[in-house]
Amino acid sequence: MNNKVLVTGGCRSGKSRHALELANRIPGDNRIFIATLNPLDKEMEDRVHRHRTERSDTWHTVEEPLLLAEALDHKASAADVILVDCLTLWVTNLLMAHEEPALIESRVKALAETIRKIDCPLFLVTNEVGSGIVPENRLARLFRDQAGFCNQVVAMACDQVIWMVAGLPVKVK
Amino acid sequence: MNNKVLVTGGCRSGKSRHALELANRIPGDNRIFIATLNPLDKEMEDRVHRHRTERSDTWHTVEEPLLLAEALDHKASAADVILVDCLTLWVTNLLMAHEEPALIESRVKALAETIRKIDCPLFLVTNEVGSGIVPENRLARLFRDQAGFCNQVVAMACDQVIWMVAGLPVKVK
Amino acid sequence: MNNKVLVTGGCRSGKSRHALELANRIPGDNRIFIATLNPLDKEMEDRVHRHRTERSDTWHTVEEPLLLAEALDHKASAADVILVDCLTLWVTNLLMAHEEPALIESRVKALAETIRKIDCPLFLVTNEVGSGIVPENRLARLFRDQAGFCNQVVAMACDQVIWMVAGLPVKVK
Repeated sequence: MNNKVLVTGGCRSGKSRHALELANRIPGDNRIFIATLNPLDKEMEDRVHRHRTERSDTWHTVEEPLLLAEALDHKASAADVILVDCLTLWVTNLLMAHEEPALIESRVKALAETIRKIDCPLFLVTNEVGSGIVPENRLARLFRDQAGFCNQVVAMACDQVIWMVAGLPVKVK
Repeated sequence: MNNKVLVTGGCRSGKSRHALELANRIPGDNRIFIATLNPLDKEMEDRVHRHRTERSDTWHTVEEPLLLAEALDHKASAADVILVDCLTLWVTNLLMAHEEPALIESRVKALAETIRKIDCPLFLVTNEVGSGIVPENRLARLFRDQAGFCNQVVAMACDQVIWMVAGLPVKVK
Repeated sequence: MNNKVLVTGGCRSGKSRHALELANRIPGDNRIFIATLNPLDKEMEDRVHRHRTERSDTWHTVEEPLLLAEALDHKASAADVILVDCLTLWVTNLLMAHEEPALIESRVKALAETIRKIDCPLFLVTNEVGSGIVPENRLARLFRDQAGFCNQVVAMACDQVIWMVAGLPVKVK
């Protein structure tokens, strides 16, 4: 049973839409959408609004920019399905909150433990951010490292991993 | 029959070469190459020249930086095969011409309609530009969004989609 | 027999770890690790140190930032297995040494010839750097081109090519 699924890919590769389609196949009334994005500007708000319109009213949205493992643990027992969108923004938020790399890595590992522990069907969206040229900005390099580490650790904890290319799913696990 | 093929991948992943190899297998004398690039500097001219040398004299080159759907529609009835290189530069040209995002998206949808409608074997080259870190420049983010949207919509209209890695084709549709 | 293997992928996709795991399956006492990185700062040193810790004492490390084909040729006759990490840094070093693009390309071709010629099992790590937006910096664009060219030419010379996504291997050749 593939009930923990990670969907990764580049920007506008169809990740969120595909994860939502998969999650919508799971029956049940208690559907939790965990949004890691706290929109900071108009551009972000537009993106949030577009994604929210794509989901139906059957999803209950929870905003959790930082304590993702804790939110997941808290919601899992009563939920029929959980969709998390997305891990890369979560890592961004942790970096912006000036957390040390070692602390971020331990949060990522705790998230993976929670994913393994819960029974609830779970779909997680993440981003591929490490296939461009090495950024000149040190924080951007640190972010790439942490985001890549997060993807690896969460992928290990999931039953299925899907790589999106031009809106098409490629199963890599 | 896979006669509408999209070839995508990163920079220097062998996309143009592979699409040309596939297109060269289609017989017929009326072979149309639609170039979306208007070379603006020496670096671009060198790239155009290298690609033109890789094609043989059997291809007739048409330059169309903006009205791609229209050019495709116009050429398709008499052509034996059409090769378009590339969609990402086309989206770049539309942005540089100060077209609004909504207009670009409608042009992309019109292109997909034309792809579905024409009978002529068609090979389209595009670029993966959304797997690096989020760019700081707003126009670059808009470009990533539009290019990713274009890839998704055109991939849906094609029979086959190929992802290039280190010069090797990976079939994703 | 797949004894020449190229492992590619984005930053922190698990390339080095996976290549090491594959190489560790090859028996023999004479194990050569060719490092192309000359660490220039603390950040680089940390990365080198982390990778060195991941390898065991059974590997003998050789540092060769520039003359990679020559080092490979020299070590191959007596080695049981060779691991090269990584080609992208090698290309970076050649660019930093102000070598002309044509010279770099001939070095890449010579490397491919050496890979084909030697009998020793060989594992090479490289990076995907061409799937972000086109960089504004001219040197960065040149680097992307050279790194992509290197990946294509070396992939052709190898028996197997593996693309890493979120720590998971996807066989592309």
